[in-house]
Amino acid sequence: MLPAILSSPSSSSTSTFPLRYSSPSSLTNLSSLPLTIGCRRTSKKSTHNNCSIRVQVSSRMIEKETPETERPHTFLRESDEGSSGDESSKPNSVRARFEKMIREVQDSVCAALEDVDGGGKFKEDVWSRPGGGGGISRVLQDGDVFEKAGVNVSVVYGVMPPEAYRAARPVDNGDTKPGPIPFFAAGVSSVIHPKNPFAPTVHFNYRYFETDAPKDTPGAPRQWWFGGGTDLTPAYIFEDDVKHFHSVQKGACDKFDASFYPRFKKWCDDYFYIKHRDERRGLGGIFFDDLNDYDQEMLLSFSTECANSVIPAYIPIIEKRKDTPFTDEHKAWQQLRRGRYVEFNLVYDRGTTFGLKTGGRIESILVSLPLSARWEYDHQPVEGSEEWKLLDACINPKEWIC
Amino acid sequence: MLPAILSSPSSSSTSTFPLRYSSPSSLTNLSSLPLTIGCRRTSKKSTHNNCSIRVQVSSRMIEKETPETERPHTFLRESDEGSSGDESSKPNSVRARFEKMIREVQDSVCAALEDVDGGGKFKEDVWSRPGGGGGISRVLQDGDVFEKAGVNVSVVYGVMPPEAYRAARPVDNGDTKPGPIPFFAAGVSSVIHPKNPFAPTVHFNYRYFETDAPKDTPGAPRQWWFGGGTDLTPAYIFEDDVKHFHSVQKGACDKFDASFYPRFKKWCDDYFYIKHRDERRGLGGIFFDDLNDYDQEMLLSFSTECANSVIPAYIPIIEKRKDTPFTDEHKAWQQLRRGRYVEFNLVYDRGTTFGLKTGGRIESILVSLPLSARWEYDHQPVEGSEEWKLLDACINPKEWIC
Repeated sequence: MLPAILSSPSSSSTSTFPLRYSSPSSLTNLSSLPLTIGCRRTSKKSTHNNCSIRVQVSSRMIEKETPETERPHTFLRESDEGSSGDESSKPNSVRARFEKMIREVQDSVCAALEDVDGGGKFKEDVWSRPGGGGGISRVLQDGDVFEKAGVNVSVVYGVMPPEAYRAARPVDNGDTKPGPIPFFAAGVSSVIHPKNPFAPTVHFNYRYFETDAPKDTPGAPRQWWFGGGTDLTPAYIFEDDVKHFHSVQKGACDKFDASFYPRFKKWCDDYFYIKHRDERRGLGGIFFDDLNDYDQEMLLSFSTECANSVIPAYIPIIEKRKDTPFTDEHKAWQQLRRGRYVEFNLVYDRGTTFGLKTGGRIESILVSLPLSARWEYDHQPVEGSEEWKLLDACINPKEWIC
Repeated sequence: MLPAILSSPSSSSTSTFPLRYSSPSSLTNLSSLPLTIGCRRTSKKSTHNNCSIRVQVSSRMIEKETPETERPHTFLRESDEGSSGDESSKPNSVRARFEKMIREVQDSVCAALEDVDGGGKFKEDVWSRPGGGGGISRVLQDGDVFEKAGVNVSVVYGVMPPEAYRAARPVDNGDTKPGPIPFFAAGVSSVIHPKNPFAPTVHFNYRYFETDAPKDTPGAPRQWWFGGGTDLTPAYIFEDDVKHFHSVQKGACDKFDASFYPRFKKWCDDYFYIKHRDERRGLGGIFFDDLNDYDQEMLLSFSTECANSVIPAYIPIIEKRKDTPFTDEHKAWQQLRRGRYVEFNLVYDRGTTFGLKTGGRIESILVSLPLSARWEYDHQPVEGSEEWKLLDACINPKEWIC
């Protein structure tokens, strides 16, 4: 769910982060960009970012967005579109290609969802920020199949504090005092909640982060990271569905590196953990963050592959389950699990909690919440029941494919 | 909602707080005791605690509670019941009388709610902790009038770090290094959500905190604080109801100090603030915290008066509104406002967020959440509508009585 290129402190009220243009918190609207700058991990196997600098952020650091009546062809600044000689300014720069990719993914996912829904249509909100960047929020609410589906893209220009940038560099001789480092971030983020309690919720989010090379520190490198993931949250387990979903994730991973699926599957189980319940919110998928220790082109292709895998991973499951007959009890259990989803997003998700603290576009940030949710006091599923089996799999993550 | 005798950092994962017996996080179950020890405020007018020490807490610092089949006559330790010569050990000690008061309030409020409901009955869970203390959770769910009502009491024995205690003392000559200071905390906490969208939600919470006099620092004083409040959260405004509610709060305050109502009314508006929405969760009431700058007996009487004012403040409103006819649209608006209640409790309420982080009794902590809640994308009430009027009053707090 989260932008670990940057990861936020869960507290904070004092600003040490001079965001000049716009905050990263609106990066994906669903899962905004928190403000810790991660650094290169010592091991590719690590699923935790042990070497990041936590940056205090203030509560109103984001420029107010301006609604737009039309989608611009790009949210990149003009200077990023080829008018300068800088590497990032070329039309085929990674930032330009990443924006193109996430907007195509937004279009294709929305089209596929409207097609399955039959009745519901996405409502679109477009906005920009004065200093550059902007976003497109699309929400389908109370459709025939989907209770609430949000698919958002955003592009953010911001400035990170120099100490965070220095920490990300392997060597700092202390001779120079670089100023704040401009950064670019872009992402697509989506949460899709169907009506039928046998049809699972899915979330996906893919994002790219890049700093400018600091002008006052000759030779200092440009930094970049990729992050993202796709995870499934059913109220009831259909093993075939879960295996299909994980197989598609594994297939996308295996095209690039055999270590990716096992590593990112575990990372996903670790991330979507509701600590106070000692259970995950769902049955996982893949999740990765701060990824920069592979070839940049390879990771762009990998992110594209993952984002394009959402439709084949998810839509066949919805087609199978959207019309399954159900009782009020099934629906109540789904609503209880939606309550867990709310707990995770409001209490733990770094993008959401950061976005709420920094004054991002609230409606875009909270579109991830379900249309409705339920909390019963001390609800305990009967041991061995279908509800109990789901809960057990959330408490004890399983390997779904061998 | 929260025990500001202690207030927690909203982040943290490292423990510097050697809780030996049980954590204060289960103090009231609904609104647990965070771990910052506040110190005497410089001005009685201040509604913010500017001089507290924030203490890092670990995520599993609380002893597992043990279910009990019967309510004990007291949760005080035997040593607190008169067997030692210490002031706090006498049967008429403040801690003993406070526990008696909150248990009587729990009984009377539950009886009044069952009486109004007609059908629903409270389910009771009693528990204790091995090192002393315990609690009684009572929940009425899906009654005829009430969707979910929780009324909890708890008593906590814990140990606070010496640096927090030293900070609470006006003078520290640095000659002594006191060990951890044992503390006692007790409270009653309740959230009552009716079914009818014209019948408001109410929350109240009253608590008392006391340290032992440190044995290794002769002459160092015992510390104590009172905190609490009662606030109303309607989905629709009936001015007569809100005026009645605030008048009863003012009446309770005015018996003790003419400055209390205006001061605690503002404190309430400030506390129940959903920052990311720039709106309050409801129409307020009174709220106070860290109160120790009045006579201790006076504050015990004041807390008792406030707690006993819940029934006359709230029950007449419920009697008037419980059977008002309503439409699906009225219900949907109530559910949206319940969503705001969830946002406040999970994101901001210090007791809830602290309780979730420290492993308190989750079902007791989260009984404050409504049975159901709703999030619609970008919902905007029509200007001038009844829904708009409620939202306006949440954004711009009003003076309800002159």
